[in-house]
Amino acid sequence: MSDSDSQERIAVVLPDGSELEVDADATVEDCAYEIGPGLGRDTVAGKLDGDLVAKEEPVYDGVKLEIVTDGGGEEYLRAMRHSASHCLAQAVCRHYDDVELAIGPPTDEGFYYDFDDLEVDESDLATLEAEIEEIIDADYEIEREDLSIEEAKDRLEGQPYKLELLEELADEEETVSFYRQGEWEDLCAGPHVDSTGEIGAVKLLEIAGAYWRGDEENPMQTRIYGTAFEDESDLEQFLTRREEAKERDHRKIGREMDLFSIQDVTGPGLPLYHPPGKTILNELADFVTDLNEDTGYDYVETPHLFKTDLWQKSGHYENYADDMFVFELGDDEFGLKPMNCPGHATIFDDGSWSYRDLPVRYAEDGKVYRKEQRGELSGLSRVWAFTIDDGHLFVRPDQIEAEVEAIMDSIDEVLQTFDLEYEVALATRPEKSVGSDEIWERAEEQLEAVLEDRAMEYDLEEGDGAFYGPKIDYAFEDAIGRKWDGPTVQLDFNMPERFDLTYVGEDNEDHQPVMIHRALYGSYERFFMMLIEHFEGNFPLWLAPEQLRVLPISDNNLEYAREIAAEFDDFRVEVDDRDSTLERKIRAAHDDRVPYQIIVGDNEQEAGNISVRDRFEDQEYDVSIDAFRSHLEAERDDKRTEPDFLQG
Amino acid sequence: MSDSDSQERIAVVLPDGSELEVDADATVEDCAYEIGPGLGRDTVAGKLDGDLVAKEEPVYDGVKLEIVTDGGGEEYLRAMRHSASHCLAQAVCRHYDDVELAIGPPTDEGFYYDFDDLEVDESDLATLEAEIEEIIDADYEIEREDLSIEEAKDRLEGQPYKLELLEELADEEETVSFYRQGEWEDLCAGPHVDSTGEIGAVKLLEIAGAYWRGDEENPMQTRIYGTAFEDESDLEQFLTRREEAKERDHRKIGREMDLFSIQDVTGPGLPLYHPPGKTILNELADFVTDLNEDTGYDYVETPHLFKTDLWQKSGHYENYADDMFVFELGDDEFGLKPMNCPGHATIFDDGSWSYRDLPVRYAEDGKVYRKEQRGELSGLSRVWAFTIDDGHLFVRPDQIEAEVEAIMDSIDEVLQTFDLEYEVALATRPEKSVGSDEIWERAEEQLEAVLEDRAMEYDLEEGDGAFYGPKIDYAFEDAIGRKWDGPTVQLDFNMPERFDLTYVGEDNEDHQPVMIHRALYGSYERFFMMLIEHFEGNFPLWLAPEQLRVLPISDNNLEYAREIAAEFDDFRVEVDDRDSTLERKIRAAHDDRVPYQIIVGDNEQEAGNISVRDRFEDQEYDVSIDAFRSHLEAERDDKRTEPDFLQG
Repeated sequence: MSDSDSQERIAVVLPDGSELEVDADATVEDCAYEIGPGLGRDTVAGKLDGDLVAKEEPVYDGVKLEIVTDGGGEEYLRAMRHSASHCLAQAVCRHYDDVELAIGPPTDEGFYYDFDDLEVDESDLATLEAEIEEIIDADYEIEREDLSIEEAKDRLEGQPYKLELLEELADEEETVSFYRQGEWEDLCAGPHVDSTGEIGAVKLLEIAGAYWRGDEENPMQTRIYGTAFEDESDLEQFLTRREEAKERDHRKIGREMDLFSIQDVTGPGLPLYHPPGKTILNELADFVTDLNEDTGYDYVETPHLFKTDLWQKSGHYENYADDMFVFELGDDEFGLKPMNCPGHATIFDDGSWSYRDLPVRYAEDGKVYRKEQRGELSGLSRVWAFTIDDGHLFVRPDQIEAEVEAIMDSIDEVLQTFDLEYEVALATRPEKSVGSDEIWERAEEQLEAVLEDRAMEYDLEEGDGAFYGPKIDYAFEDAIGRKWDGPTVQLDFNMPERFDLTYVGEDNEDHQPVMIHRALYGSYERFFMMLIEHFEGNFPLWLAPEQLRVLPISDNNLEYAREIAAEFDDFRVEVDDRDSTLERKIRAAHDDRVPYQIIVGDNEQEAGNISVRDRFEDQEYDVSIDAFRSHLEAERDDKRTEPDFLQG
Repeated sequence: MSDSDSQERIAVVLPDGSELEVDADATVEDCAYEIGPGLGRDTVAGKLDGDLVAKEEPVYDGVKLEIVTDGGGEEYLRAMRHSASHCLAQAVCRHYDDVELAIGPPTDEGFYYDFDDLEVDESDLATLEAEIEEIIDADYEIEREDLSIEEAKDRLEGQPYKLELLEELADEEETVSFYRQGEWEDLCAGPHVDSTGEIGAVKLLEIAGAYWRGDEENPMQTRIYGTAFEDESDLEQFLTRREEAKERDHRKIGREMDLFSIQDVTGPGLPLYHPPGKTILNELADFVTDLNEDTGYDYVETPHLFKTDLWQKSGHYENYADDMFVFELGDDEFGLKPMNCPGHATIFDDGSWSYRDLPVRYAEDGKVYRKEQRGELSGLSRVWAFTIDDGHLFVRPDQIEAEVEAIMDSIDEVLQTFDLEYEVALATRPEKSVGSDEIWERAEEQLEAVLEDRAMEYDLEEGDGAFYGPKIDYAFEDAIGRKWDGPTVQLDFNMPERFDLTYVGEDNEDHQPVMIHRALYGSYERFFMMLIEHFEGNFPLWLAPEQLRVLPISDNNLEYAREIAAEFDDFRVEVDDRDSTLERKIRAAHDDRVPYQIIVGDNEQEAGNISVRDRFEDQEYDVSIDAFRSHLEAERDDKRTEPDFLQG
């Protein structure tokens, strides 16, 4: 750090909004020492305008700076996991010769490292874990070294993937950084913790194949996944939750309940919904369709295939072309839609509108297509084609508040129906944006007014709105505490401009409407996946593919069982008429996650009543048909998530 | 005709099933003379195994022969229209120099001829018509001449399109035929009538652009459409019906009622459904969904995009690849589905089935994609993407009869709901087919039994079934007497084989199910189009996008009008609150084809009742709200095509 007056000075912005003046060549660590020597010593990394960087990185004038210290927190955990991935690679290099190293980043749940020419299986993980423990116990200092491109090239001899990365860095940088721990080092931008001893608890999780750079045209490498935490108890908690998540995995339950399949002959990322899965999807769709119709939406239907002229007009082509499925036909290019909005704007544009006609609200369960890398596809959580319960509103600027209020009412109804706790965030105008000051201010005021009016707590994410308008984002938490992106309400000043949408105002002049994008579920596929895992397949009665199963105790009761099923034929009901014991029938119904079993034997038949058993193994005898029906109807029609009967 | 005993003899099969022995080099005309000299003289053309050919064509051993005479009938009309198209080309050649001739075939409704380097507009049609009249009055003999390819090439000098056709013929034929009338001749396979004087009445209809061979990569030519009939009164009848059809044109009504649009920016053959159109489509879908659910169908959902591996497995790739939208992605090829059946077979294949589980019935409103030539696309009648109310059943051979019976019940219900008269035809095993004798016989017996059981008249189309199974086809007639292809029931022994589908029989062995393809509407797009034209936009109440409109006579009655609308809010109801006269409001409601107008003025308001007017201009005063409601509910819920009120 130089105090020389001759050097140029710059200012960085601290989290509390205050400015700190430092030398023009100051690093993150320099800034921390400037604030105080204690902070300087504790600094592990920094965030520059939100991006995590090593403490050795220089700051620049006007940057928003956050200091990441070894005092814990999400960013510190990330740095520690990054260091743990280095320990993994070091352990691998100690045990296997001629391994080629690819990349080894931290992730939200841990870390991984990709290797080529490495033959390992799950049985080798314990050995590697033990080696990592030794590396941690040795408490190597983790040292950074900056090298010229030429020097780096020498260091990386025999590492073709690293050399490929270096070549790309050489286009932009004059020096690159290496991180060394003990005898091992890696080309790496950091940040890392100060020594391997800082790493608390490590666990290797699984081995998978992964294409170099996620591109299936490249070689398949070996990826080893692991995770790290500050202490054993955090790790234990994570592993327990991970086991829970595995039990709930929607791919496993999807197969058990015959909900959907993704097959090799039909293609990746393209699920086929089997009857039980389609029944649930239809119930979900009916629910939001009723909500939408009650709140003044008109349904429309747009093609899945469009001339890409439309995407050029909407601006999606510029940003989305690489993620779109496109093909040439004659002189034109066609593409599967990545978004429903331009189709809806086209329909609006086909009409002529007065201020009295607005708001116009279009809804469509519209399938969209996004060409994710094949390696990234996974069950229903990442697919090539998914359906959005999409809605687009064309409103006057003075109608924003009322419309957003109504949308949030619908979102509340949806999330409460599934007992999902949620948080909201308001994201406001970013530096680069379209639309006048006046319309942004008016729109943001109205969004804030809605949130205030509802007395909702919300995060204010200043500057995090889309370039085309401010938005309200929802995030909710499932039964095992995982967070999910949820519904959104986005204002859009850009698309009306691009499509030159107008309505005639009271002044007889043309005006531009504001467009609102909204979804209650978001993607059906993701929401369905989340519900499968949230309920562990034990869907609420209204969603359950099979709602009731009648189990005759013996063949003598089969006729009576069929009569009972007929009594409940406004439910999805089956009779288990297999030649089997009652115990096995109960077990089968339980495994199939049928909400209620109706058991009928000679006693029930004689008394003209039934016994009822739920999937949580509670049972009640001598139940009158009418009494059970009224419970059942209430549970279904109120869309309850808890049983109304037995546990009620 | 030769009587030489030395010549080889062959046998042709006459329509009554009897055989006629003729010389091996006999023509159609020879055969006619063999039957009788009168028939010989009257012969215009023949049908060989169903294909219309010139009378000069040779017959072959075992062929089914029909003689076409000048005594009228569909085939004779076709030959006459073909001759009329020659008269058109002759007239054009007399009036315009250096015209290049393309093709000029008869069609179901008349004929056309395509020209290149011809500049005409509608105002020229009268001159051409007059010239055609002169050609008819001249009563030129129409003479056929067979030429070698080389001779033909000389004749066609300066006619590049004809030469292109000749070149293709040269691959298969040694001689080609020309037809001459007066100074004009054309390369043509015929058949034609004997002289231009036989042509009764001709009318030129319109001029359009058409790509050479329908391919948009080729030059755009000028197509002149016309029609011809045996006499003036048939022509008049046709022209009247054509005017009616124009008034009913679904593209015109579609725009007037804001049902759908097909726009340049979004692409050809890809309709966007606006709210009123989508409302009707949803009602149509709900109707068949209820029917399907009541008859034991399970809904499934399959992707629109598949790896083409699936189409290779199903065999569609061989026959359909040219009509499919396909593109490469990585090492795989993907295509938009032209059919829903392979997706459903894939789902069935994913399960394991016992004989007790069958029949399994899958339903899906599945969109399919077929790459029609752009020039052939037209409104909703020919599109690139359309939705089939598709159903596929997997049944045991002994279940065919009961399942087909149930399907025909559903088809009856659909067609009767729209008051559509229909005919059915049973098409049986063709020469080339897959499946054992036993399964074909058993299947055909069962289909016949169903038809007999229903005491239905039907055409037996022997040998016209698909190679994969027999089928029952429906055709229905609309309000102005046009015939439309309708629902079908097709048995399929091929796809179960290709997908190796099995169920475990009572004998514990694997058996192959029979697949049944069925649709109640067929394509939603075509059925919707047909309904628009059939009802001329005056949809039955249950389908009408806006069912009721309340017209307040003055502003004083606006509040009451809104109360009335609220009373009927289980209908699609609007209030005309515009500042306008009652007369204009009535006119607007009429133009918008709203089934019922509720008119409320001071009298109605005071009495607490309403006046009701229908779109056919009948009106009734002093109607009680309850009385109207009960009529309205009955009309909607019974899906009546005629109003229950006023005209009831």
